[in-house]
Amino acid sequence: MALFFTRKKPAAQPAPSPAPSAPGGRTVEPADPALEARTLEVGADFLARARAAKTNMLAVWSEGLMDWAMQDEAFKVQIFRFVDCFPTLKDNDAVYDHLTDYLAQPGVTPPPFVATALKAGVLMKGVVTKTMSTQITSMASKFICGTDAASSLPALRKIWDSGLCFSVDLLGEACVSDEEAEAYRRKYLDLIENLPGTVATWGANPRLETDHLGAIPRTNVSIKISSLSARVDPIDTEGSIRGLLENLGPILEAAKRKGVFVNFDMEQFALKDLTLELFMRACEKHDFQAGLAMQAYLRSGDDDARRVIEWSKRTGRQVTVRLVKGAYWDYETINAEQQGWPVPVWSRKVDTDASFERMARAFVASTPATKGEGGVKLALGSHNARSIAATIAALEKRGLPNSALELQMLYGMGDQLKAASIEMGLRLREYAPIGELIPGMAYLVRRLLENSSNESWLKAGFKDNASTERLLASPHRAFDSDPGVERIAKAPERHRLSASPAGISNGRAFYTEPMRNFALSDVRSSFNAAIARTSVPAVANAGTADDAKRAVAAAHAAFAAWRDTPYATRAAVLVAAAAEMRTRRDELSAAIVKESGKVWREADADVCEAIDFCEYYAREGARLFEPERLGQFVGELDEQWYQPRGVAAVIAPWNFPLAICCGMTVAALVTGNTVVVKPAEQTPSIARTMCEILWRAGAPREALQFVAGPGETVGATLVRDPRVALIAFTGSKAVGLDIVQASGIVAPGQEFVKKVVCEMGGKNAVIIDTSADLDEAVLAVRQSAFGFCGQKCSAASRAIVVGSAYEPFLHRLVGATRALVVGDPANPGTDIGPVIDEEAARKIRSYIEIGKSEGRHELTLEVPAGLEQKVGKPFVGPSIFSGIKPEHRLAREEIFGPVLAVMPAKDFDEALEIANAPEYKLTGGVFSRKPAHLARARREFRVGNLYLNRGITGALVGRQPFGGFGMSGIGSKAGGRDYLLQFVEPRAVCENTMRRGFAPGLE
Amino acid sequence: MALFFTRKKPAAQPAPSPAPSAPGGRTVEPADPALEARTLEVGADFLARARAAKTNMLAVWSEGLMDWAMQDEAFKVQIFRFVDCFPTLKDNDAVYDHLTDYLAQPGVTPPPFVATALKAGVLMKGVVTKTMSTQITSMASKFICGTDAASSLPALRKIWDSGLCFSVDLLGEACVSDEEAEAYRRKYLDLIENLPGTVATWGANPRLETDHLGAIPRTNVSIKISSLSARVDPIDTEGSIRGLLENLGPILEAAKRKGVFVNFDMEQFALKDLTLELFMRACEKHDFQAGLAMQAYLRSGDDDARRVIEWSKRTGRQVTVRLVKGAYWDYETINAEQQGWPVPVWSRKVDTDASFERMARAFVASTPATKGEGGVKLALGSHNARSIAATIAALEKRGLPNSALELQMLYGMGDQLKAASIEMGLRLREYAPIGELIPGMAYLVRRLLENSSNESWLKAGFKDNASTERLLASPHRAFDSDPGVERIAKAPERHRLSASPAGISNGRAFYTEPMRNFALSDVRSSFNAAIARTSVPAVANAGTADDAKRAVAAAHAAFAAWRDTPYATRAAVLVAAAAEMRTRRDELSAAIVKESGKVWREADADVCEAIDFCEYYAREGARLFEPERLGQFVGELDEQWYQPRGVAAVIAPWNFPLAICCGMTVAALVTGNTVVVKPAEQTPSIARTMCEILWRAGAPREALQFVAGPGETVGATLVRDPRVALIAFTGSKAVGLDIVQASGIVAPGQEFVKKVVCEMGGKNAVIIDTSADLDEAVLAVRQSAFGFCGQKCSAASRAIVVGSAYEPFLHRLVGATRALVVGDPANPGTDIGPVIDEEAARKIRSYIEIGKSEGRHELTLEVPAGLEQKVGKPFVGPSIFSGIKPEHRLAREEIFGPVLAVMPAKDFDEALEIANAPEYKLTGGVFSRKPAHLARARREFRVGNLYLNRGITGALVGRQPFGGFGMSGIGSKAGGRDYLLQFVEPRAVCENTMRRGFAPGLE
Repeated sequence: MALFFTRKKPAAQPAPSPAPSAPGGRTVEPADPALEARTLEVGADFLARARAAKTNMLAVWSEGLMDWAMQDEAFKVQIFRFVDCFPTLKDNDAVYDHLTDYLAQPGVTPPPFVATALKAGVLMKGVVTKTMSTQITSMASKFICGTDAASSLPALRKIWDSGLCFSVDLLGEACVSDEEAEAYRRKYLDLIENLPGTVATWGANPRLETDHLGAIPRTNVSIKISSLSARVDPIDTEGSIRGLLENLGPILEAAKRKGVFVNFDMEQFALKDLTLELFMRACEKHDFQAGLAMQAYLRSGDDDARRVIEWSKRTGRQVTVRLVKGAYWDYETINAEQQGWPVPVWSRKVDTDASFERMARAFVASTPATKGEGGVKLALGSHNARSIAATIAALEKRGLPNSALELQMLYGMGDQLKAASIEMGLRLREYAPIGELIPGMAYLVRRLLENSSNESWLKAGFKDNASTERLLASPHRAFDSDPGVERIAKAPERHRLSASPAGISNGRAFYTEPMRNFALSDVRSSFNAAIARTSVPAVANAGTADDAKRAVAAAHAAFAAWRDTPYATRAAVLVAAAAEMRTRRDELSAAIVKESGKVWREADADVCEAIDFCEYYAREGARLFEPERLGQFVGELDEQWYQPRGVAAVIAPWNFPLAICCGMTVAALVTGNTVVVKPAEQTPSIARTMCEILWRAGAPREALQFVAGPGETVGATLVRDPRVALIAFTGSKAVGLDIVQASGIVAPGQEFVKKVVCEMGGKNAVIIDTSADLDEAVLAVRQSAFGFCGQKCSAASRAIVVGSAYEPFLHRLVGATRALVVGDPANPGTDIGPVIDEEAARKIRSYIEIGKSEGRHELTLEVPAGLEQKVGKPFVGPSIFSGIKPEHRLAREEIFGPVLAVMPAKDFDEALEIANAPEYKLTGGVFSRKPAHLARARREFRVGNLYLNRGITGALVGRQPFGGFGMSGIGSKAGGRDYLLQFVEPRAVCENTMRRGFAPGLE
Repeated sequence: MALFFTRKKPAAQPAPSPAPSAPGGRTVEPADPALEARTLEVGADFLARARAAKTNMLAVWSEGLMDWAMQDEAFKVQIFRFVDCFPTLKDNDAVYDHLTDYLAQPGVTPPPFVATALKAGVLMKGVVTKTMSTQITSMASKFICGTDAASSLPALRKIWDSGLCFSVDLLGEACVSDEEAEAYRRKYLDLIENLPGTVATWGANPRLETDHLGAIPRTNVSIKISSLSARVDPIDTEGSIRGLLENLGPILEAAKRKGVFVNFDMEQFALKDLTLELFMRACEKHDFQAGLAMQAYLRSGDDDARRVIEWSKRTGRQVTVRLVKGAYWDYETINAEQQGWPVPVWSRKVDTDASFERMARAFVASTPATKGEGGVKLALGSHNARSIAATIAALEKRGLPNSALELQMLYGMGDQLKAASIEMGLRLREYAPIGELIPGMAYLVRRLLENSSNESWLKAGFKDNASTERLLASPHRAFDSDPGVERIAKAPERHRLSASPAGISNGRAFYTEPMRNFALSDVRSSFNAAIARTSVPAVANAGTADDAKRAVAAAHAAFAAWRDTPYATRAAVLVAAAAEMRTRRDELSAAIVKESGKVWREADADVCEAIDFCEYYAREGARLFEPERLGQFVGELDEQWYQPRGVAAVIAPWNFPLAICCGMTVAALVTGNTVVVKPAEQTPSIARTMCEILWRAGAPREALQFVAGPGETVGATLVRDPRVALIAFTGSKAVGLDIVQASGIVAPGQEFVKKVVCEMGGKNAVIIDTSADLDEAVLAVRQSAFGFCGQKCSAASRAIVVGSAYEPFLHRLVGATRALVVGDPANPGTDIGPVIDEEAARKIRSYIEIGKSEGRHELTLEVPAGLEQKVGKPFVGPSIFSGIKPEHRLAREEIFGPVLAVMPAKDFDEALEIANAPEYKLTGGVFSRKPAHLARARREFRVGNLYLNRGITGALVGRQPFGGFGMSGIGSKAGGRDYLLQFVEPRAVCENTMRRGFAPGLE
């Protein structure tokens, strides 16, 4: 099961609804005017009752911090970030340090009471930290019932006694290991086994215990599927479902036995199809009382609703759908844009509200009228009176009683609406979270953000006292523009990741090629089909030194013509090559899977990066050949531009067999150099395919030469040939330094100093600070260290863990690594494929032995028997060593394999010192939620590519220009704006345009 | 006499006046309303008569080409450029090629009759070239009396007979040699000896032959002083005047004997003071009938007038001043801005007109009323009726008769005004040029431009028929803004030669430091005083390898602190150093003169360039340390910036002992590297002074180390020290390649690959095309080849001359070189100082011997006896060899001395081939007036710095980023935008700013 899909997992819950006043589009005439009229009538009644309600709970808005946060956006961002990391802070000093750090961020104005306290300095430290802790705990207690089942009972009882029912939800951290999945399962089972007995003793309330078809359970539990397995990844939907069904079995059987209602929460879009499928299969396998949350903010909402209704009708099942607007709107929007994927959610709240009403009407229409009939019973998870009223109106029109509908609202929110609902005799269920402070903070922050959002319907209705008309306005609109669609369509212009010279490619700025979204089933099928049909053409490493010389001679002869080819023509070759690669993406990925042993996502990223290099360099090269005028002197025309250097030798590595080879080759070609490509001996086939694509795209055969052969002969000859003007190399430090040294010698007849573009190794570290979000850090380090078996120069080979984070991080990391699947890379569920060859395997294994003598051997994942034979390549299981010290070889030497050294550091200072120690300076990472530590890392963690609060591999062209210094390279930064400068030489011209004392342009 | 002051020398003559309608300022009340009223009265009468005049000459406007030129600016520029080069074209093919080339330039629309003919292609070639030649000759004959004295007699006779008198002017090319000066003198003498006899036979005309004080000569000759000596340079005003007086003697004595009036024309501003001084001394020495042209467009006009009036009164002399507006307005404006000097001319025509009236009134007031009295008699050189009327009114007011005033107008222009003048009984003299077609073209083009200018008063009055009111409007205005002042004041913003980061230096963009304007006497005195008082502190080259190691160790230890110093602080060091150098400019220049043997202008340029490097790099470095955001992703903050490399070794040359040493040092310092400076062994003192300035400016002692010592020990140690991260070197190819090779070796303990910034030699060529303007080419090649004895990597060591240009170019170049003064560089009149040391002298002399065996030895300038002893350094006279072939050593090897190989080429193709042959690729030049050849040279003359139609040395920071490729260097371009990139390493950071699914900035 592929787990390299890192993501944020915020807690799932129904979302509140915004005021339907969002702009965009034109109001359309209601399809059913009577229904609309009734909606407004019910809504007005509901709102009036709510506003008249005397609730005895203080709204969260009255909290001092919340009040200030709503006035000051910068303060809000920082204080909520502080709240988020608060539970990881072990003592008052840490709380105080972090609080003052967050409040010292640019643009933040702390509220006067805080400012005064802070100004008093350490004198007030005790008071400040106590006040802050109290306020956070107080806010948390508004939204969270208790820390565990037992401590929550009084709150649940109170809910019940106040005339509401509830659904219990277990808050939790990300589930990264089987151990954590097991712990969740135990908690759910505990609830299901024990809660009904207690609840049964509480007083009867028919309004809450029956719907129009009969009894419904008092005990209602919400589960998040991502917490039930460490191996949930949509790329392997089948495997994920198999594992989840296995883990769910005991829970659902217990629920059935105990008469407990189980609701499947809906999490991010990537898991939507998997969750729907799982839900249906679970219902078919276990006959329990089942519910499913569905999200109206998804553009697929209407289709999703149809699918579930159709299934329930076809199978004759009665299930409940909790219809929510959706709680991951920001994440889905941000993530889609980062990935370049279509935004899956409606961009305007008003469109989500409209979708909500449409879906609700569809569910009402499908609601079974009799006990035996299949269909969907509707639960409305909304704090928006308009949305509720519209559904009640639809229910009335269908002739169903109010009891056929359930309302659901969040514990601690919308008290006025709850009071009104009770008055109106509606069944209302509170969504009641239970959990510890750490997992609870994510939930708390989400609630705080909602409550302080200007789009909050509750805030509009009860804090800002908007007009009834505005609050109940119809969300149904026609619109011509769609910000969510435009966000992706216009991304190249918004981001300007490159120049956008006219006539080059599509004339727009470069944008990173979106990787495959393997959450989509047709994407998976098509990739799978490519794997099945693609074979790797044999390319022998048969080239000799003489072949290399002949290739250089031919490239040398072809230089003048290629140099003088117009830039647009050269760039068009790259663009055409990118187009062919785009068309053949899965096939090329499949070839990489087979030749290099990469897993699906890694191979796909390799192809995307190759396309990116073509499109990026095609655009970035244009300005180099366009004379730039310096100054505006009359009578003096000063200009500067560049020319190519001559013959370039490209000596490529096997670890990005397409991307890196392509990047170096097309950089040289587009700048007018002719090229001899010497591929890595392990991956000549994909390099040969790349050359064929470039030839077809218009690169002259003579201008692009391909010689596969040994480095000792072909490589050495290329480097030393006096006609080779430039050597672009990516590979080991040893070979890189040899090339640098050989290139420094000017051979007889050589008319220039050779230029070397050189990227070498890394010994990259990730620092995990005490305030790190371990949910993220564990997964990111696992991916950075073990993705493609650590065979990336950017791979993490050291995790430096500060103080109190050491134990929990190491524990969770080992657990998470244990959850990785070692297998055939052709299978989507494989996380860990083979290493590149026996020599590599031997070297890695020798370092594992060294590790055993230097530190504590925490883990080497086992390789399943027979796998090596089946795949035909050697495997080395991911290995973790703890207690490694800076002087150890595991802390200094590049291994280029899946071996991670975990190193303790007493504080952040020491962590930085350890991190900076090796001679390599390539990538690095820091997980921290202390702003000052992040700022310091920016300054003092001296590597070419630093990553903060994310994994340290996967640099994207144009976004993270890639390359290091020290022994990691000479500072070239592939995919960056300076890169092509290395392939050219500058020329300047100064023309005196004055003739006879006159020059054009004088005013 | 210093002759390295190249300049355009357009022919001198009185300028026409513009319509006084130019904008700017507010009309002020006339100081004397009666005078103004009378001015308008006289002007209206004059204008009415002129408009009523029936002249039988066709105005030049009626010419087809002129008509079209006035409609189409692009066509005008190109056709006038074609006219300019027309006389150099030897046959119909050349005429046709150039014509079609000019008309094919971007934006040009040829008139229909030309377009039709061109479309017919070579079929019409004969017709096209004949028509064009006829039209040019016809236009020329409108403005030029004849090709020589004899052929001009009929035209002069016609002038006299029509009631006008004349002043004869000899058109000529630039005078670059004694031979040419001698030829001019002979022509003047011929005129003066022979014209009076002929003229005396013509009919009497008292109006023309007498003024209010008596008889005036019929024969009036205008002379240009620049044509009378090849050694006119204001830097050596005394020497220039001495030489001129010597050459003028026979002419003035002959004039006195023959009763011929001699008028000194006024040329460009740089010669103004020299000409005034010369005129006065000539008058005092020779008692001839003397006149002097003075220019009202000069801002110094009022002062100049006062000076001459005061002198005439004081000495009791009667002289005539021909008051003109001025003919070099474009040149003066363009040149001043290129130099960064105050614009010496009024920027608005209206202000010139006002100055003209003020100066005229001053001269009228000084006009002697009696024979014995000293004072200025006024001749008005103007085609502007308002200007003339204002002066007549002043004359009337003073009570002088009209005969006390002379009008002067150009031959072929203003015929209506001339007719009116005769009617009004005024004496009007025509300025009558005589000359061949080649020198005549400059004059012709000037007339064509004037006549087609929208500011021409004549055009306004007689072609566009502007209103009398507009034509006679008073030019006296008050104004708040002055475009000419603003042109210089706002130059940094207009040219944007660099970034202008806030808080760095003055917050404005970089602008090149203006060199000293040695035409100004106080500038000369102050420089001379500095020479007298400055001595060169002794600095021994006593450093050892151990000293070098210690310096590296100290710089290494100082690195972290300097690296972490805020950029603004580092930049401030450079700015403060520049400020001190600016304050001590002449002293630093004087030290350079004494230590390196540079002449004044070369030493001054050295200091200016050092200042420029400081100011430019201070600004350009800022952006490197300011994180640049890539893209605008929400939740993803991608940034890139740079960090310094470590310890930099600066190994400096002696030929720009301050500028290049300073450039490399401050580039390294400002980017945060610490530096060890190893100066050239020949010039340690100025390098030491530079370090002292930088220390005083705030560079920490430890961060900037100075070790003077031998290259073999100190240099070699620095290059090989494993702690040295960067070597910046400028010097010979041999040493450069050694450094490159040594730097490729990674020593034990070395944690990076060394970076080498390396500039080496040149074997630079200037191509002289058949259509070259030889006036310019000869002076530019002389300066490029022999400036600082050719001891610049940019120096010209080859002149490649195409076809018919070979003989005249070589002849003039040898003559021009012969005019150079070999002497003590401390004297302003010295062109050629010593070479740097005995070793250099030996090497250069050996190449002179080689040259004698390879080609024809045209010249080696003799070194005056005793000079080497006096100066204490060896001298080698500039040498020219002709007939050098590409395979000769003189065509391939860098000599680094004043030895020029002149090489014939049969056509431009061959010239380019020869030019590109050497392994060096540094500078190059082309003199051509064929647009297609210039365009081809841009593409195909492959050198780092190409110069078109100008000299090939003297690259300016920011304007001509300097550096070559091939064996000339690794393409670094000092003073360019990429230069600092070499001193830094890129870093990138990618921060995931999403927390809990939320990130700031999402809309």
